[in-house]
Amino acid sequence: MKKICVVIGSRANYSSIKSAMCAIKKHRELELLTVAAASAVLDRYGAVVDLIESDGFKIHEKLHFLLEGETPATMAKSTGIGLIELSSAFERLKPDVVITVGDRFETMATTLAAAYMNIPIAHTMGGEVTGTIDESIRHAVTKFSHIHFPASRDAANRIEKLGELREAIYCVGCPRIDLVADILGEENLDVSHHLFELGVGDKIDLSEPFVLVSQHPVTTEYGAGEKQIWETLLAVKKTGFQAIVLWPNADAGADDISRGIRKWREQGLAENMHFFKNLPIDVYVRLMAMTKCLVGNSSSGIREGAYIGTPVVNIGSRQNARERGTNVIDVGYSEVEIYDAIMRHSEHGKFSAEDIYGNGTAGKQIAEVLATIGQIQLQKTITY
Amino acid sequence: MKKICVVIGSRANYSSIKSAMCAIKKHRELELLTVAAASAVLDRYGAVVDLIESDGFKIHEKLHFLLEGETPATMAKSTGIGLIELSSAFERLKPDVVITVGDRFETMATTLAAAYMNIPIAHTMGGEVTGTIDESIRHAVTKFSHIHFPASRDAANRIEKLGELREAIYCVGCPRIDLVADILGEENLDVSHHLFELGVGDKIDLSEPFVLVSQHPVTTEYGAGEKQIWETLLAVKKTGFQAIVLWPNADAGADDISRGIRKWREQGLAENMHFFKNLPIDVYVRLMAMTKCLVGNSSSGIREGAYIGTPVVNIGSRQNARERGTNVIDVGYSEVEIYDAIMRHSEHGKFSAEDIYGNGTAGKQIAEVLATIGQIQLQKTITY
Amino acid sequence: MKKICVVIGSRANYSSIKSAMCAIKKHRELELLTVAAASAVLDRYGAVVDLIESDGFKIHEKLHFLLEGETPATMAKSTGIGLIELSSAFERLKPDVVITVGDRFETMATTLAAAYMNIPIAHTMGGEVTGTIDESIRHAVTKFSHIHFPASRDAANRIEKLGELREAIYCVGCPRIDLVADILGEENLDVSHHLFELGVGDKIDLSEPFVLVSQHPVTTEYGAGEKQIWETLLAVKKTGFQAIVLWPNADAGADDISRGIRKWREQGLAENMHFFKNLPIDVYVRLMAMTKCLVGNSSSGIREGAYIGTPVVNIGSRQNARERGTNVIDVGYSEVEIYDAIMRHSEHGKFSAEDIYGNGTAGKQIAEVLATIGQIQLQKTITY
Amino acid sequence: MKKICVVIGSRANYSSIKSAMCAIKKHRELELLTVAAASAVLDRYGAVVDLIESDGFKIHEKLHFLLEGETPATMAKSTGIGLIELSSAFERLKPDVVITVGDRFETMATTLAAAYMNIPIAHTMGGEVTGTIDESIRHAVTKFSHIHFPASRDAANRIEKLGELREAIYCVGCPRIDLVADILGEENLDVSHHLFELGVGDKIDLSEPFVLVSQHPVTTEYGAGEKQIWETLLAVKKTGFQAIVLWPNADAGADDISRGIRKWREQGLAENMHFFKNLPIDVYVRLMAMTKCLVGNSSSGIREGAYIGTPVVNIGSRQNARERGTNVIDVGYSEVEIYDAIMRHSEHGKFSAEDIYGNGTAGKQIAEVLATIGQIQLQKTITY
Repeated sequence: MKKICVVIGSRANYSSIKSAMCAIKKHRELELLTVAAASAVLDRYGAVVDLIESDGFKIHEKLHFLLEGETPATMAKSTGIGLIELSSAFERLKPDVVITVGDRFETMATTLAAAYMNIPIAHTMGGEVTGTIDESIRHAVTKFSHIHFPASRDAANRIEKLGELREAIYCVGCPRIDLVADILGEENLDVSHHLFELGVGDKIDLSEPFVLVSQHPVTTEYGAGEKQIWETLLAVKKTGFQAIVLWPNADAGADDISRGIRKWREQGLAENMHFFKNLPIDVYVRLMAMTKCLVGNSSSGIREGAYIGTPVVNIGSRQNARERGTNVIDVGYSEVEIYDAIMRHSEHGKFSAEDIYGNGTAGKQIAEVLATIGQIQLQKTITY
Repeated sequence: MKKICVVIGSRANYSSIKSAMCAIKKHRELELLTVAAASAVLDRYGAVVDLIESDGFKIHEKLHFLLEGETPATMAKSTGIGLIELSSAFERLKPDVVITVGDRFETMATTLAAAYMNIPIAHTMGGEVTGTIDESIRHAVTKFSHIHFPASRDAANRIEKLGELREAIYCVGCPRIDLVADILGEENLDVSHHLFELGVGDKIDLSEPFVLVSQHPVTTEYGAGEKQIWETLLAVKKTGFQAIVLWPNADAGADDISRGIRKWREQGLAENMHFFKNLPIDVYVRLMAMTKCLVGNSSSGIREGAYIGTPVVNIGSRQNARERGTNVIDVGYSEVEIYDAIMRHSEHGKFSAEDIYGNGTAGKQIAEVLATIGQIQLQKTITY
Repeated sequence: MKKICVVIGSRANYSSIKSAMCAIKKHRELELLTVAAASAVLDRYGAVVDLIESDGFKIHEKLHFLLEGETPATMAKSTGIGLIELSSAFERLKPDVVITVGDRFETMATTLAAAYMNIPIAHTMGGEVTGTIDESIRHAVTKFSHIHFPASRDAANRIEKLGELREAIYCVGCPRIDLVADILGEENLDVSHHLFELGVGDKIDLSEPFVLVSQHPVTTEYGAGEKQIWETLLAVKKTGFQAIVLWPNADAGADDISRGIRKWREQGLAENMHFFKNLPIDVYVRLMAMTKCLVGNSSSGIREGAYIGTPVVNIGSRQNARERGTNVIDVGYSEVEIYDAIMRHSEHGKFSAEDIYGNGTAGKQIAEVLATIGQIQLQKTITY
Repeated sequence: MKKICVVIGSRANYSSIKSAMCAIKKHRELELLTVAAASAVLDRYGAVVDLIESDGFKIHEKLHFLLEGETPATMAKSTGIGLIELSSAFERLKPDVVITVGDRFETMATTLAAAYMNIPIAHTMGGEVTGTIDESIRHAVTKFSHIHFPASRDAANRIEKLGELREAIYCVGCPRIDLVADILGEENLDVSHHLFELGVGDKIDLSEPFVLVSQHPVTTEYGAGEKQIWETLLAVKKTGFQAIVLWPNADAGADDISRGIRKWREQGLAENMHFFKNLPIDVYVRLMAMTKCLVGNSSSGIREGAYIGTPVVNIGSRQNARERGTNVIDVGYSEVEIYDAIMRHSEHGKFSAEDIYGNGTAGKQIAEVLATIGQIQLQKTITY
């Protein structure tokens, strides 16, 4: 039995790897080891760890390494504490392969810990192009990884250009699309009436037009978050549509955006708006299928949006150069631009599906590759 | 005044950046900030920090982050503690650019800390190809860096292929060659008679043939170091030449090699051998110019060796694929191969100089680039 | 100039040492160094650091070392990270004396860092008896401290019994009482009408009876916090009085209490209640002077309460055995007990002042002692 | 089965608790959990971890947390990293009781980690009086501990005076004396002829007079170690006796003493001297029974010395006020004093045994107490 260790550091991480975890767990030649870490073990980010367990996965290690502060320095320090804790975890678990997901600070910590400990690394969602420090982390992780599971053809090509072996690159699609496919495949796509008892703010009537807002800090624009979210909220308000607003993730600068949202609410501007810390993935996907428009800089607009056909107004540099479908309008941070784009989308309505990021079988492909791959050469060498 | 911060984590680091430090310090538009860290602040690695100060540089921060143990896990943890300490240091020093050197664990920590804190990163000695985890670290650091100072044309090309902007790559040569040029330019190239009062072992007669041994652990071959150094010592003994042997650096596995050397000495096999923890660079260069042959896996054989013309027997995978001159014979770990190669070199004698790794002006070029470069774009994007 | 370094780790810490900081800053023979750390540098605990600066103090170091999680293990780890960061800070600041306040995890970290670095330690608020791990931390800190500034006669006696030199113990009273004395000495004791625009919940009419609730986790009763706060809120609701409720501090278990309060609000039970993350000390003191009754387990009821004459219902073991005045009724965690005690106090009304914890000159006395004390013997020896 | 976790941080630690470990392991109602940490897991301090395993104990966790440097700041930081690692270890092992030994930095880390995690703490060797920071650590640990196992009557009384419950204090004697009793009870007390093949230096003829030197850094006299050991070595040389010299432990300042010894050897002064990094306890005890005199500041002179009757010249403040027998002469750091005391002892010869530190049954008593003790009250309260 090959021991495959997945490190999950956030809710987004979990959604991005869940279908692969299911497939690994079911595979008779693989054993799944699950490490929950960073914001995934914290109540105030929605206790993802409980969700993982309620989905039937055993958690082998819970690691706390998120240092409070959400400043540039605390992100670096959290990565450092993560290295300390993850190396101990790997020493105990002795996995044959570590899967590291995407491009976050815990992805970097996971990768470095595994690399130092001579454990082969499989990386999902490599090769894409975006903004923020994620861009550097993602490509750096590629340079440490032994097996690559990019989510799109474009990404796979980029990984090869980075000097990785063609035979180590498996273009499986995005495992998040697997979840979306599952959810949209269900019979009943209604969202519970009780949804708005959670979170805070006014109740939203889902049979009437509403926009979905999900805006995260841009680490290279540290300090600008409060103004950025404010422009977005002004634009949304002007449209007259109802709005569902999500709080930002834990990256450096999240405090700025949170403060912006708090002030917005405290100044009594939040009429017809409802605020959630986070949403179950199935609810989120259904809302994406129903919304007039998704506004912000979440990668879900680009990726899941393409598969679902959600109209998306993508703000600023965070998703720069990520391959995107016809459903996305890119805009700057100003109220005017954002407003115009929402109104344009509002006239167009839903788009037809594109499978840029996979066809819903990524998880199964990942498990199969890990089970059948031969001896992995630990020493990496660039191909040129 | 632009504040340029150099982080020095080891003796080798210092030799690799010293000429650039001199040039930065002298430059009227630049201010040099020096952080000494990891093994550079430790007595038992030769107190490099004292050497730096005696060379006339002010040390702005001394950071301890080397965790004892030299196992794979402690290397990961040391990187973690380094991130914690370096991010605090950068917060206080507020440099405009951080220079990170080469491909060691402290290089990675320096790079990540600077990247999270939105400080532009200049990287020296990127783009080369070697063995061990250094190979991955080096290319990963390239993906975080804003200015590249490769040491050879070959390396510069590789950095561009990695998706870096051509205009951010300055092929300046290796700053270590600057030092070598300085040293070999001195009138008197004799080595002091008092040299052998330091270190332990028999006194070497430098007017008679001797070999120089410098063999470091290979992190991906953890556990094999004791046998590896033993084969080398057997081969050296068989040649009948005298030998000067250096202890290994602080990488994972160093304990194995040290144990091998200790046992060799305890078993009374060390006749005509002398052992040093480390040597001043000027002494080392002169010995390289005088030795029959440099044996081991030190990068100095490949780089400085090319410029000096030292015959080199390069053992194992550590320097794999680093561009090399005609002065290098590559061999495996066995006594026989090593012995044969030493004897072959012994017949050939010294080689003529090649400038693969620069012409002795790297430091000045680095300072000039840093002084004249315009606004650096923090957000990196891959070029393809 | 003697350099006196104060480490402030929380809002409560700051209130407990502010008057001493003022006196040190003014003293011509002393220089004040201020380190803000742990929850004091965090937005979500009210950015105490901004308050410190707006009070005219220069902050010399801001240290992040609070690990997210608020579990027993993260408290230990936060202490660990604190040791790493504080020892670097002391290395840079080189204080002649470090002042450590009270009995929190950052107090322990401050004390150990200073002790290892051979810096004399002055400890305020030692010698008291309470519940939770604070009890052990406080006495342990006494065993590392060179100068003791207890807040009461009773505490001073206890420090001497612990084997400390009588001449090193200065019974100066509690510096928090200095602040209370200042505030109550002002002409206008009204609270601004705008107070309730901060925080969340219903507006309170301060001319009508209200109770003040401040209940913190008890670290040795980890996991019980949600039920404990629930009983308190039920009791308060039953009295029919309005209520001002404060969120808990950052100790292990705070999440439980926070969750209890959130659920209370989400279930629509929070009528006539208003909730604050924290309150400026001057507002808090005025509310203590106006409230029908302070309910919970905050030390402020015992200490400031004695001086102000506030009726206090003290719940559970957290303030166990802290010396108290006639203004305090001690009860268990049940709704019934708490309700009865509030109603009893409500009939009695305000108490007259007692000066168990000082007369309002503690800060000045502390500064004077630090300025005039001779050479401090670093090596401590128990007196028996 | 009650799970009893022992944390061993050094060779001395191990000797101090080994007999209790044996007794716990054998006890049918107890399960022994062993954590090896700090210098105990390091090759260069003699790989105590291998010794523990070869003695038949299973190691449940190996924790690296010794930061290189041996400066005051690195001692603090090592304690911090220890807290991070030990709290994770305790989270996994879930012991019912943690045993913490003596007064070293890892003792403090063990104690704090256990205290935060609400695990009852048993402390051995508390209540004694010595010099250095150990003095404060020891009493601080007492204030966190729930069960006390002092080594002498005097120490037990002191613990009670510190405000601890009389019924929680068990005066069992010192477990190191158990080992000494075992060793001296063996038939053959000869030391192997092969001893001097280990270590470095001249071979000692054990049938001729020799002194034993064991001198450690005094943390409050940081920087003075080189001169201190030099005076001692001068005095020893002057006596004309042969000498066996031990390298210092890992406390802050060890580098100074090591440098002193190295220089002594490098200057060719080490005739008739042999140097060991450390010695197996059975060899050390036999040497203590044979030596003319033990010179230095090791606690073994005071404790084991009393039981064995070894003449001891105790230098400086490190053992200040530790209860001692007639076998000890206390002196300052000067060559003259040390020389005179050695010569005086040399005339007197061996002393008769005193059982100040126990009668050889401490380990068994500790196991029995842990097995039979009822529910331990986690919340501590001072008794006065």
